[in-house]
Amino acid sequence: MSHLMASIKRAAPELDVVMHGEPRATHAEIAACWDPPRGALANMPNLRLIHSIAAGVDNILSDPELPALPLCRVVDPQHARGMSEFVTWGVLHFFRQLDVVMRNQRQAHWFRPAQEHPSQCTVGIMGLGEIGGRVALDLHRLGFAVRGWARQPRALPGVEMFDNAGLHAFLAGTDILVCLLPLTDETRGILCAETFERLPRGAKLIHVGRGEHLVVPDLVDALSSRRMGGAIVDVFPAEPLPSDDPLWHTPNLIVTPHMASVASSDTIGLQVAQNVQRLLNGEPLHNVVDITRGY
Amino acid sequence: MSHLMASIKRAAPELDVVMHGEPRATHAEIAACWDPPRGALANMPNLRLIHSIAAGVDNILSDPELPALPLCRVVDPQHARGMSEFVTWGVLHFFRQLDVVMRNQRQAHWFRPAQEHPSQCTVGIMGLGEIGGRVALDLHRLGFAVRGWARQPRALPGVEMFDNAGLHAFLAGTDILVCLLPLTDETRGILCAETFERLPRGAKLIHVGRGEHLVVPDLVDALSSRRMGGAIVDVFPAEPLPSDDPLWHTPNLIVTPHMASVASSDTIGLQVAQNVQRLLNGEPLHNVVDITRGY
Repeated sequence: MSHLMASIKRAAPELDVVMHGEPRATHAEIAACWDPPRGALANMPNLRLIHSIAAGVDNILSDPELPALPLCRVVDPQHARGMSEFVTWGVLHFFRQLDVVMRNQRQAHWFRPAQEHPSQCTVGIMGLGEIGGRVALDLHRLGFAVRGWARQPRALPGVEMFDNAGLHAFLAGTDILVCLLPLTDETRGILCAETFERLPRGAKLIHVGRGEHLVVPDLVDALSSRRMGGAIVDVFPAEPLPSDDPLWHTPNLIVTPHMASVASSDTIGLQVAQNVQRLLNGEPLHNVVDITRGY
Repeated sequence: MSHLMASIKRAAPELDVVMHGEPRATHAEIAACWDPPRGALANMPNLRLIHSIAAGVDNILSDPELPALPLCRVVDPQHARGMSEFVTWGVLHFFRQLDVVMRNQRQAHWFRPAQEHPSQCTVGIMGLGEIGGRVALDLHRLGFAVRGWARQPRALPGVEMFDNAGLHAFLAGTDILVCLLPLTDETRGILCAETFERLPRGAKLIHVGRGEHLVVPDLVDALSSRRMGGAIVDVFPAEPLPSDDPLWHTPNLIVTPHMASVASSDTIGLQVAQNVQRLLNGEPLHNVVDITRGY
């Protein structure tokens, strides 16, 4: 948090920035937070604005005592760029069969996979917000067939769109499934056996959403039965993943340490400071969360 | 070869296409080949054109009895696209430290690497032909700092160019070295201890040129001394790499089975057939090799 406090101070030196837990914090008018202790925000009587320091707000919305105040989040183009890098790496890893090649290396086994055109491979992206949209366009530019599933379909050039009612059709044609959904009551547990069974046999998963989207035993079953051909999982219900968790050693699963992308502390500090200025000036806030929708 | 014969026949059904070894082959006017037996071409008295069925011609030029005839090669944009996919995968693998993350997974060790902007990472590409140029532009578009080293520097937007005399400066600023050179007398063994020592400590190598560019024991030394931080090697002096070769198990080395990219047999067949037509019509041939230069 100290990096972030410094970056807010740099962006707005006139603000009085204090850590939660300091006595003055109870008088705060703006709370910048990611996973606040339950009830902490309700105990700040002067609060006027809650600002997530990330793209996601699920850890804030899950506070049962959340005050009815404007809630904003960070939208960082560099965050989307980093996510696109990670997903591009994962898609190429599966598309070019580097997972197979790396397993073969351990057996000193030379086998050249057949080379296909990327248009033969359909990447299905769940969640087409600021980040999912950027990922979709970048993969389309590389030649992949890209489809998206979103509650509110967006027009993205070259990307085939499916809405809520089209989920089964979306899954049936997806070779590599990428989860970039926000965590809401509707999306919790969406990566489950029923979803995996609707994918083509041998499909791959790249999960860079939230830990709670994934029903872990269902993925382990789908990998061990070969229904799913492989997975990269970057997010977990409890992080860091404990060292005795069997997930670390699940065949055909790459475990990555919630590294796909973070917003930069400079951008977070700047966006929080700018929204504070807008609040003080009575101007419209940027990146306001629709609380009923959850993102 | 039979796929290729079929694709030449599809492109030019009027041609008489025979396999080397059939009696009629000695009367051939055009030879399409990749690694012809030494002296075989010299024993074809009617030969008017030698056509490589690949981008490289080193296995043809190394024939000491090579007849003095026009030599053409295949230039396939899909080949360049596939190479760019493979190199992009490798660059992202090292840049986002997936090599470290995958080693950590085996130890059940959670460690989040710091996330940097790709402009902080310089990719140095040796060889800026049709393929190297495409790779350079694609990596530049992803935000990497890209530099190229070529005998004949080309103007590529956003790519810093170094010529022969600039090799040491080129290497000194390269974090990830990509070899896409043709194999010639000048480039044989260029990936050696002296080259590795001029790179920044911990630099990475992605070798997708020819096996003979690399002095294998020098790379093994550089990896074991940690002078080099990692390597992906796709090409070997003898392929397939024998299953008892210690390279398979060299730490921090990813061995891939000469899979980075191939030209499609449809494109090869078409380009050979079109050059044959041009020859018969007395028109200029396409993709003629400068034999003194070697590519």
